[in-house]
Amino acid sequence: MNMTPKPDPAIDTAIAALTQGRDLRVWSLIVTLFGDMARAPGARLSGAQLSLITGRIGIRPEAMRVALHRLRKDGWIESKRVGRASHYALTPFGRDQTQQAAKRIYAGTVDTPDSWHIVLAEPMAQADRAALEQQLVAKGYVTLTPTSYLGKGPAPAAPSLMAMNGQIDHVPDWLKHTLMPDRLMQDCAHLEKRLKAALKPLACPEELTALDAAALRILVVHAWRRVLLRQADLPDAFFPVASRGPACRQMVQHILGALPQQAPEISG
Amino acid sequence: MNMTPKPDPAIDTAIAALTQGRDLRVWSLIVTLFGDMARAPGARLSGAQLSLITGRIGIRPEAMRVALHRLRKDGWIESKRVGRASHYALTPFGRDQTQQAAKRIYAGTVDTPDSWHIVLAEPMAQADRAALEQQLVAKGYVTLTPTSYLGKGPAPAAPSLMAMNGQIDHVPDWLKHTLMPDRLMQDCAHLEKRLKAALKPLACPEELTALDAAALRILVVHAWRRVLLRQADLPDAFFPVASRGPACRQMVQHILGALPQQAPEISG
Repeated sequence: MNMTPKPDPAIDTAIAALTQGRDLRVWSLIVTLFGDMARAPGARLSGAQLSLITGRIGIRPEAMRVALHRLRKDGWIESKRVGRASHYALTPFGRDQTQQAAKRIYAGTVDTPDSWHIVLAEPMAQADRAALEQQLVAKGYVTLTPTSYLGKGPAPAAPSLMAMNGQIDHVPDWLKHTLMPDRLMQDCAHLEKRLKAALKPLACPEELTALDAAALRILVVHAWRRVLLRQADLPDAFFPVASRGPACRQMVQHILGALPQQAPEISG
Repeated sequence: MNMTPKPDPAIDTAIAALTQGRDLRVWSLIVTLFGDMARAPGARLSGAQLSLITGRIGIRPEAMRVALHRLRKDGWIESKRVGRASHYALTPFGRDQTQQAAKRIYAGTVDTPDSWHIVLAEPMAQADRAALEQQLVAKGYVTLTPTSYLGKGPAPAAPSLMAMNGQIDHVPDWLKHTLMPDRLMQDCAHLEKRLKAALKPLACPEELTALDAAALRILVVHAWRRVLLRQADLPDAFFPVASRGPACRQMVQHILGALPQQAPEISG
C-alpha cells in the first residue's frame, strides 16, 4: 500500500460498477462509512478524510456537506472543531444503529438459533394487523403469513399470541419466495456481478493506494448492506436455492478480508 | 338388576331431561346405540331389543323403522333374518366410524401427544382455503387461524406447507374461545344439568331394570357424543377455563361405570 495515487483502470471500473444505476444516497453511504471505519466508541473521522474518500467515490463536496448536515440534524453524527479542522463521530444512537446492522453485514455465516418459535395472532382488521406486525418486526420477528410470525429461541410471554416452541421442519417454496421476492432476487444477482468487478483490483492488492482501498471497501460494504438488510435475518435455507445471497456473502467476506478497515491517514 | 319394570320417578325424570329440547335425531341415536352395545365384530341386536330400548326412550316404532331403513341404505348397518326375527349389526364401515368416535367418547382423559406441529398454508383464495382446510381437518388437524393448523406428533411430509415441530407454549383466550364458541359453551353447561338428572336414579342402581339401565346409558352416551364431537380433540388447556366439558366428562365416566354396557336380553 502507498499513498501516492496512480492510475489503475481496474479500480475505476470497480468504483463505476459499484456506484452505477440507482441514485447513490449520500447520507446512507456516509452512515456506511462511519459504520465501517469509525464504529468504535471514541473513533472519529476528520472532514478532510471524509472529503477524500467521498471525493474518490465521485460524490460532490456540496452533496457531502448536505448529507453531513442532515445526519447531524437526525442525531446520527456529531461534529467537533479541533483548531481549524472539523472532526465527526457517531452519536451513541448512531453507534447503536450501526452496531446492530454490523452484526449482520460483517458476519461470514448467518446465525442459526438452537430453537425457534412461531406466534399466531388473532385474525383482525388490516390496520390492527399492520400495527401488530410493526411491533413484532421491531422485536426481530419475521412475518410468515398475515397472522403468523417466526421468532428465534423460546417464545417470550405474550398473552395475546398463540405460541409454539420448536424446530423448523420444512420451508415451502412459496414462503421462500415471500421472504425473497423476485425484485430482491434480481438485485442480489446484480450485486454479484458488481462484486465481481470489485474483485479485479484485488489481484494485486499491494498496488492499491490506501484511498482506493478505502473507497472500494466502503462501496462494497454499502452495496452489500443495501441488499442484505432488505432480507429477513434468517439462514440460507429460508430463501430460494437460486438466490445469489450466499455467493454475495462469500465474495464480500473475501473482498473485505483483503482491504484494511481503516480510513486513509491524512499526512501533513 | 331385574327385568321386571316397576315405576321409578327418578328414571322417568332422567329420560325426560336427556330427551327434552332439541329434536332427537332417531338415526343418530341408533348409531349411538349400536356403537355402545354392538360395536364388537359379530355383535348384533335383534329387532325386539331395538324396539324395547327405543320404546323406553319414547321413540315411536315407525320412526325407528324409518331410521333403520335409512341407516341400511347409507351403509351403516345390515340386517339378517333369523327365523321370524330380524337381527341388525354394524357394517364394517359403520363399525369403523363408531370405533373412531368411541376412542373419544369413552375416554376418561384426553390424549395429550408428546409433541405437536403447526403447519402454515400460503395465503390463498377463500375457496382454495376451504378445500385445504377440509383435507387437513380430515387428517386430524385443528384450524387455529385461517392459514394455520395444529397437528399431533411430528409433521408428516407436505411440500406446500411450512411446518414446525415442537411444544405448545401458550394458548391465548381468543383461541380458546375460537375452539369453543359461546354456543358450545352453553350446550356444555346445559349438558351438565341434564347429566345431573341422570345421576339421581344411580343412587340405588340395583333397583334399576336392565331396560331402564340400557335406556339411561344410551341417552347419556348420546348426549355426551353430540357435544363432545363438536369440540376439537384437544386437551382441556385449549378450552376456556369456564368450560363445563371436563365436568361433563367426569360425570359421564361415573354414570357409565355404574351402568352395564349390554343390551337387555329378551327372554322367551
